[in-house]
Amino acid sequence: MEAVKNKNRSRLVAAAMQKIPCDLTVENSTFVNVITGEIYPASVDILDGVVVRVREEGVKTQMPSRETYDAGGRYLVPGFFDTHLHIESTMMIPENFGRAVVRCGSTTVVTDPHEIANVCGIPGVKFMLENAKKAPMRIYALSPSCVPSVEGAEGNGASFKAEEIRELLEEDSVVGIAEVMDFAGVINDVPRMHDILRAGHEKGVFIQGHAPALVDKELAAYYIAGPVSCHESRRGEEVKQKLRMGMHVNLQSSSILGGLLPSLLSGMEGMRYKDNVSICTDDIHAKDILETGHINRVVKHALAAGVDPVEIIRFATYNAAREIGFTDLGAVAPGYMADFQLLDALDGSNPKTVFVGGKMVVENGELVDRTQSGEIPFPNTVHLEQITSPDDFKLRAPEGCGGFVKTAVLSRTGVMFYKADYEELPVKDGFIDISADPELCFVALCNRHGSGSRTIAVYRGFGLEKGAVASTISHDCHNFTVVYKDEADAYAAARELESCGGGITAVENGKVLSTLDLPIAGLMGTRSVEETAEIAAKVEEAIASLCYGKEGMLLKTAVMALACLPCIMITDKGIYNGLNGVFLDEFLPG
Amino acid sequence: MEAVKNKNRSRLVAAAMQKIPCDLTVENSTFVNVITGEIYPASVDILDGVVVRVREEGVKTQMPSRETYDAGGRYLVPGFFDTHLHIESTMMIPENFGRAVVRCGSTTVVTDPHEIANVCGIPGVKFMLENAKKAPMRIYALSPSCVPSVEGAEGNGASFKAEEIRELLEEDSVVGIAEVMDFAGVINDVPRMHDILRAGHEKGVFIQGHAPALVDKELAAYYIAGPVSCHESRRGEEVKQKLRMGMHVNLQSSSILGGLLPSLLSGMEGMRYKDNVSICTDDIHAKDILETGHINRVVKHALAAGVDPVEIIRFATYNAAREIGFTDLGAVAPGYMADFQLLDALDGSNPKTVFVGGKMVVENGELVDRTQSGEIPFPNTVHLEQITSPDDFKLRAPEGCGGFVKTAVLSRTGVMFYKADYEELPVKDGFIDISADPELCFVALCNRHGSGSRTIAVYRGFGLEKGAVASTISHDCHNFTVVYKDEADAYAAARELESCGGGITAVENGKVLSTLDLPIAGLMGTRSVEETAEIAAKVEEAIASLCYGKEGMLLKTAVMALACLPCIMITDKGIYNGLNGVFLDEFLPG
Repeated sequence: MEAVKNKNRSRLVAAAMQKIPCDLTVENSTFVNVITGEIYPASVDILDGVVVRVREEGVKTQMPSRETYDAGGRYLVPGFFDTHLHIESTMMIPENFGRAVVRCGSTTVVTDPHEIANVCGIPGVKFMLENAKKAPMRIYALSPSCVPSVEGAEGNGASFKAEEIRELLEEDSVVGIAEVMDFAGVINDVPRMHDILRAGHEKGVFIQGHAPALVDKELAAYYIAGPVSCHESRRGEEVKQKLRMGMHVNLQSSSILGGLLPSLLSGMEGMRYKDNVSICTDDIHAKDILETGHINRVVKHALAAGVDPVEIIRFATYNAAREIGFTDLGAVAPGYMADFQLLDALDGSNPKTVFVGGKMVVENGELVDRTQSGEIPFPNTVHLEQITSPDDFKLRAPEGCGGFVKTAVLSRTGVMFYKADYEELPVKDGFIDISADPELCFVALCNRHGSGSRTIAVYRGFGLEKGAVASTISHDCHNFTVVYKDEADAYAAARELESCGGGITAVENGKVLSTLDLPIAGLMGTRSVEETAEIAAKVEEAIASLCYGKEGMLLKTAVMALACLPCIMITDKGIYNGLNGVFLDEFLPG
Repeated sequence: MEAVKNKNRSRLVAAAMQKIPCDLTVENSTFVNVITGEIYPASVDILDGVVVRVREEGVKTQMPSRETYDAGGRYLVPGFFDTHLHIESTMMIPENFGRAVVRCGSTTVVTDPHEIANVCGIPGVKFMLENAKKAPMRIYALSPSCVPSVEGAEGNGASFKAEEIRELLEEDSVVGIAEVMDFAGVINDVPRMHDILRAGHEKGVFIQGHAPALVDKELAAYYIAGPVSCHESRRGEEVKQKLRMGMHVNLQSSSILGGLLPSLLSGMEGMRYKDNVSICTDDIHAKDILETGHINRVVKHALAAGVDPVEIIRFATYNAAREIGFTDLGAVAPGYMADFQLLDALDGSNPKTVFVGGKMVVENGELVDRTQSGEIPFPNTVHLEQITSPDDFKLRAPEGCGGFVKTAVLSRTGVMFYKADYEELPVKDGFIDISADPELCFVALCNRHGSGSRTIAVYRGFGLEKGAVASTISHDCHNFTVVYKDEADAYAAARELESCGGGITAVENGKVLSTLDLPIAGLMGTRSVEETAEIAAKVEEAIASLCYGKEGMLLKTAVMALACLPCIMITDKGIYNGLNGVFLDEFLPG
């Protein structure tokens, strides 16, 4: 598949034959050939945004280009390629996301717009596709396969079946089917997933997988069904099994899953060939992009873990493009799009200069064109009309249970995973009373798409001391999620996010401490990366002031409702076991 | 692209989940994983011809397969994959070709039926596709791009433009466009080649290249135009340039181009990654298949040249399938077609056992099913009606040239390449007289497709001592080609091949010494590999009895008319310079 179709090959062939001049020659580079793994001095001739020729040192052309750019001996490396992320998670709209990550050397991303799809359906996805055109880099999308992530487990704003998948696959920039998260639906061949996968097979497109912790027969079944990649490995053994069967493994080091890299790399030990390894960032915050980079951040982590620079760069470029099926991205060679970066060192630091389609978009680390779209009107997607008083956030005990009741208490068991234990909790005036145990707080998952459904549960160990922390980012259905000690604070948080169209807020004593408003689907704002990071930092600070444990609070709330995880979680419909698809009783009889 | 579409994935997923039994388990193998380059003990579970799971040693299944086969600890290697050949060159029809090479461990070939296309056009290609279905292996075809190889240079039986290419691309087993030989047409962007390549781009299919000796700007121009591979490299430098720009390089060691391998391999020195290297055989004779193998013969040569066994096996399997774009061939992994061989050693020798689509087709080195089609009626394609007497094979000197005339004399300059020098030759009774120089003979290229056009030239150093050697195999137009001392013998040869529908014959003193009749388009017979090789050997013997230099006589005649080569050659229309597309004067004024 070509990233850019309808190239004028007659002109390109004429330029290669030196019958007409190229637009640009980038000369005097230390060329990193990701196809062969070699490094040598070379110049690159470009016409119409396409590489015409890579001339090794001393090879002259009879037809000088209209312009030349001196790479100053810097490394010339293809632009980095992110095989899987959700742009929404950066809290930026695509154009601003693009402006942020191109400065990190990324020139192509393949996004799964399933966050906005869960809120706004196909119009939301189309907003992303349209806005992406304004970005100074290539943004491709996949058709979200799991909207909602698991049928029946949660209430969201849209439901995609094979029909919606097919509709989106007709869009120019939609190049496949996005992470197939409902692994249980796949390996049990349930009709919704069977039909969605068939839509992919019929069209012969890339089908992205999502197989956390899946191994052995379940992994074989999942792979046979169609998904060809996975970015969710946690252990070396998973990586090993996936690579041995020809799956693509996307290494990640996202804002949620940092630190896993050494374990993932251990799964490749003894493998001579790693063509099927690429890199993705999945969910990454604006602040992290600004402070630590994008794909180059994963490159840096991999280098620290001992991976060879050329190898990790290949993962981040050539392997990535081939995984999705692009034949003109991921390398700098005749016929490929002229997307590359000039680097002082192969160490994961931001590039000096970035070219996309032969156009310089970053110079000296800064955007060449800093124009930004203005206000983007978007309908308010936060519907909490059925919440009318703080009492709606109280957890009512079962009738006649007496002074204590066995109550499901959620807690974390590891990165992103949750469990539920039943504890005897006191009952006061007919409601669960957590005031005696400082480690407990409430969490409420409230449908914000109009259904009014709502679950309140007890959570142990979140770290909240007082007040309430609320968010309309709550993977994947993005219902209103609030963690609180005090129901009045939860109520104030609901009103705050309802009025600003969504976002993240911290409330204490009925007063809003700080809010990051995200009016685009309750997921994104129209701010630049710097502005987003700055306001997010203020909200983080406010949240920290309410907590005793301080790390990663934003994300702790964000993944409590991810119904496709093989663990316990909370959704607007109840406390749900992702392993067997069954809702738990919140209370057990004494 | 899937080799086998419409797999019943529900059944395969159910089998992977051990809900239903597999058809077969091949257990106790030493598994060669061409994806990762590892070797370890494993068993392979198969259902409906598809691999369901590769179970490493000790991994049990709860649902035993209906049958098991003990690999006896042998190496289990994916079936070999030939990325480019012309089945016609084996002188066997596809079904018998398949029966021959599957015994060498080959389970997939991608054939370019351009030999028969040049003779019979689309009906010829469709005969190949239809007959291929009877072979015990996978035979895919490409749509021949150069029929004739160069427009205007030679007369053949059909002419393919973009329209014919498009028609063939609609056929199920046609997976791309075959070797684009008219490199001059490509890099000069002539309309015929431009349109043919566009047909490929529009359909997004594999476009096979053919770029002998092409380097530098011409190679870049050729690659940009669309062809993505080349099997015609002669020197390491060519291999290096092609691989560096991402072209696929097909190593070959065909019956014509044996011995080049070390030079080709030298072009890869210093390259860490060789994903784009595969193997092909191009033109290979029945006798060579029988005596030395098919793809495994190239494997053997590469091993002798020092290539690592796992690396060369990867070239011959995984890399090959990916080059063409198959996602379910070239490896043994869940979802892949169960095409593999069991080998005593990784040394290029023929396999003990071969499975295709999970069915055992070779056991103990022999075909399991030896059924062969019977007589296949085919119209006689040898039209030499305009040749009516031995005098038609005399070379007439220009009017009034006197006793001597400067005459173009052909000779070989290397593998497959020819040149022409002008020599003063004697004239007798108005005709060129070569009787005084034992190193000279005549060569006549006679259109056998009805046009009656004919070129007679003088050839130095063919090695013919007496008589005539004639063939209707003469790449690519397959005109009647005869090398002779005596015009009466040439005439007898014409009558012999006309009457048997084509083939190869040796004649002395007006008497046919031996003939290999090839009634299918004058290119193939319906014989098995053993029968073909036996009769070919007899003809070779007869030819040798006419010659003083004895090697490769069949092929010397077969490539003298290949108009796409960048050298001098002879066609039915004259003596032609493939470098600049100009016909030479056969005689120069004194």
